[in-house]
Amino acid sequence: MFVEKLIQLIKDKKSVVSMGLDPRMDKEGEIPKYLIEQYADPNKVILEFSKTLIENTYDLIPVVKPQIAFYEKYDALDALRETIKIAHKNDLLVILDSKRNDIGSTSKAYADATFKIYKADACTLNPYLGFDSIQPYIEYYKERGLFILVKTSNLSSNEIQNLFSVKIDNISNTQIEIQKEKVKLVRNYIQIAKLIVEWSKNLHNFSNYSNIGAVVGATFPQELKSVREIIKNSFILMPGYGAQGAKAEDIKYGFHKDGLGGIINSSRAIIYSYANKKDFNSDRFGEAARDEIIKMNNEINKEIGL
Amino acid sequence: MFVEKLIQLIKDKKSVVSMGLDPRMDKEGEIPKYLIEQYADPNKVILEFSKTLIENTYDLIPVVKPQIAFYEKYDALDALRETIKIAHKNDLLVILDSKRNDIGSTSKAYADATFKIYKADACTLNPYLGFDSIQPYIEYYKERGLFILVKTSNLSSNEIQNLFSVKIDNISNTQIEIQKEKVKLVRNYIQIAKLIVEWSKNLHNFSNYSNIGAVVGATFPQELKSVREIIKNSFILMPGYGAQGAKAEDIKYGFHKDGLGGIINSSRAIIYSYANKKDFNSDRFGEAARDEIIKMNNEINKEIGL
Repeated sequence: MFVEKLIQLIKDKKSVVSMGLDPRMDKEGEIPKYLIEQYADPNKVILEFSKTLIENTYDLIPVVKPQIAFYEKYDALDALRETIKIAHKNDLLVILDSKRNDIGSTSKAYADATFKIYKADACTLNPYLGFDSIQPYIEYYKERGLFILVKTSNLSSNEIQNLFSVKIDNISNTQIEIQKEKVKLVRNYIQIAKLIVEWSKNLHNFSNYSNIGAVVGATFPQELKSVREIIKNSFILMPGYGAQGAKAEDIKYGFHKDGLGGIINSSRAIIYSYANKKDFNSDRFGEAARDEIIKMNNEINKEIGL
Repeated sequence: MFVEKLIQLIKDKKSVVSMGLDPRMDKEGEIPKYLIEQYADPNKVILEFSKTLIENTYDLIPVVKPQIAFYEKYDALDALRETIKIAHKNDLLVILDSKRNDIGSTSKAYADATFKIYKADACTLNPYLGFDSIQPYIEYYKERGLFILVKTSNLSSNEIQNLFSVKIDNISNTQIEIQKEKVKLVRNYIQIAKLIVEWSKNLHNFSNYSNIGAVVGATFPQELKSVREIIKNSFILMPGYGAQGAKAEDIKYGFHKDGLGGIINSSRAIIYSYANKKDFNSDRFGEAARDEIIKMNNEINKEIGL
C-alpha cells in the first residue's frame, strides 16, 4: 500500500522532501531557454526537463509531485505520463497534484484517470463536496494514497477555510441566532480534519498510518499544529516551503517525534534554483536542484529529528 | 462577453437547458455498443457520439456542458477539443465542467488550459481556496464565464456546505465558546454566495448580469431559493435535473420573473434517453435526445414563464 512504500522510502533515503514538478516556461528563471529552443514540442521540452531533474535527485528524495495544471496548460499530458514512468523507474513515488472533486460517479472517472491513465501512486483532493465525492477513491483504489486539502498555503485560504463553524442538527430555517446556548465553534479546516479522521476509521493501515493524508500549507504553522493534534494517523503533505515563504522551523509541528508523518513539498525553489545560484549555469539546472535538496534535507532533518 | 451571448441564445432558442456531455461506456444504456465496436479509438467513439448529439439538438438549446473527468478517464481530450469546435460551429456555448481550484499561479495555468487549449466559453470552479484562486480567471479572461460551486447536487454536500458558520475577527485561538454574545450564523454555502456577490461587485455586466455565476444543485430547492435572494446579478447553473432526481417545480426559484437567470443542466437523462424510450433504438440516440429536450423545454418554460 502507498503509505507503506512511502515510509520505507523516507527511511531509506533519509528524506521527507517532495520535489514539485511545475513545468513553467513563461519567463526567465523557469525552464531554461536552451531547452525550449532545442525541442519544438512542449511535451519534449517538459519531459527532458523533468527527466534531468529526476535523474539528478532520485536518490535523495522519496516523492515527486507533478502539478497537472501546467501539463494541461502546455497541452503536455503525454509528458506527464512519461515523467511518471521515469519517476517509477527511479524508485520514486508520485503524488499527482490535481485537487479534483465532483459528485460520486464523476469522481470515479477522475480516480480512473489518476490511477489508470496517469498511473500516479497518490493524488490530492478537494473536500468541498463531502464524503460521496471521496468515496470512489477509497472504494476502488484502496492501495493508493489520498491527500485531502485541509488548509491550503495561499493567503485567501482564510476566507472559507478559517471561518468558524458548527454542526447543528434539526434546524430547518437557514439563519439562527445563538444567545443563551453554549456552542463550540471550530474553524472549517478543523471540521475537515475531523471528517478525515472519520473517513479513515475502518481503513487498513501500516505503522498506524492509513492511506488517507491531509494537505496543510507549511505557510501556516499554527494551523499545522492544530491539525496534527486531531489527525494522528495520517501523513500531512505540506506545500509552500521555499518560494511561498515557509522555513524549516515552520514545519516541525507536522511531524511525530520519530520524524515521520509529514512530507514537505517545494517546487520552484528546487527545480528553478539554478536561477538563484551563481555557481550553476542554466544547463546545470539538475545539479542545482540536487544542491538545493541536499540543503533542504539537512535543514529539515535537523528540525524533525529524522 | 459570455453572459451577453448566453442571454441572446436563451431568447433566440427559447430554452434554458444545458445538455451535459458525460461520455460513459462502462455498461448498457450508456454510449451504444455499435459505436464502441465501430471505432477502436475512444477519441473517435466519443467524438462521433457527441457530434451526433449536437447535430440533433443544437437548435433547441443554448449550452452544452462537457464533463472533463470522462474525457480524462478515456484518455480522450482530443475528442473534447473537437467536440467544443463542433459545438461552436453549431451556435452553442460551452461550459467546461472541470471544478478546478488551486493557488494563484497554478490557477492561472488551469485558466489558460480551459480557455486557450480547450477553448471553452465558461467553466465551473470550486471556491475552497478563496479569492486568490479565482482571481486569475477574472483578471486574464474577463470575457469568459465562471460558475462557482455554492451548493452541489450530491447528498454529502451537506457535510461541509451546510455547516453553520460565522466570520469572527481578531481571535487568536482556534476554539471559542460563544455564550453571552449574539452571533448570527449562516450556512457555509451562503457565505460562498455572499463572497460571489463581493467578487462580482466591480465587474462589467450585461442586462445586470456579470460573467460570474453560481452552481446550485437543482436537487435542493430551498437552498436554491436562499441563494437566488442573495445573488441577484448572477446566472445560476443548476445540475441534477433528471437522472439525479430534480423536477421542473424544483428549479423555479433559480429564475427571475422574466424567465432569465438560470441554466438547467441534464446529462444522462438526455444523452442516454434512448435506453428508456421504447420508440428509439440505440442507433437513434440523437433523436431520442432531441425528443427528451423538447419535453424538458416545455416542462421548464411552463414553470419559469420563458
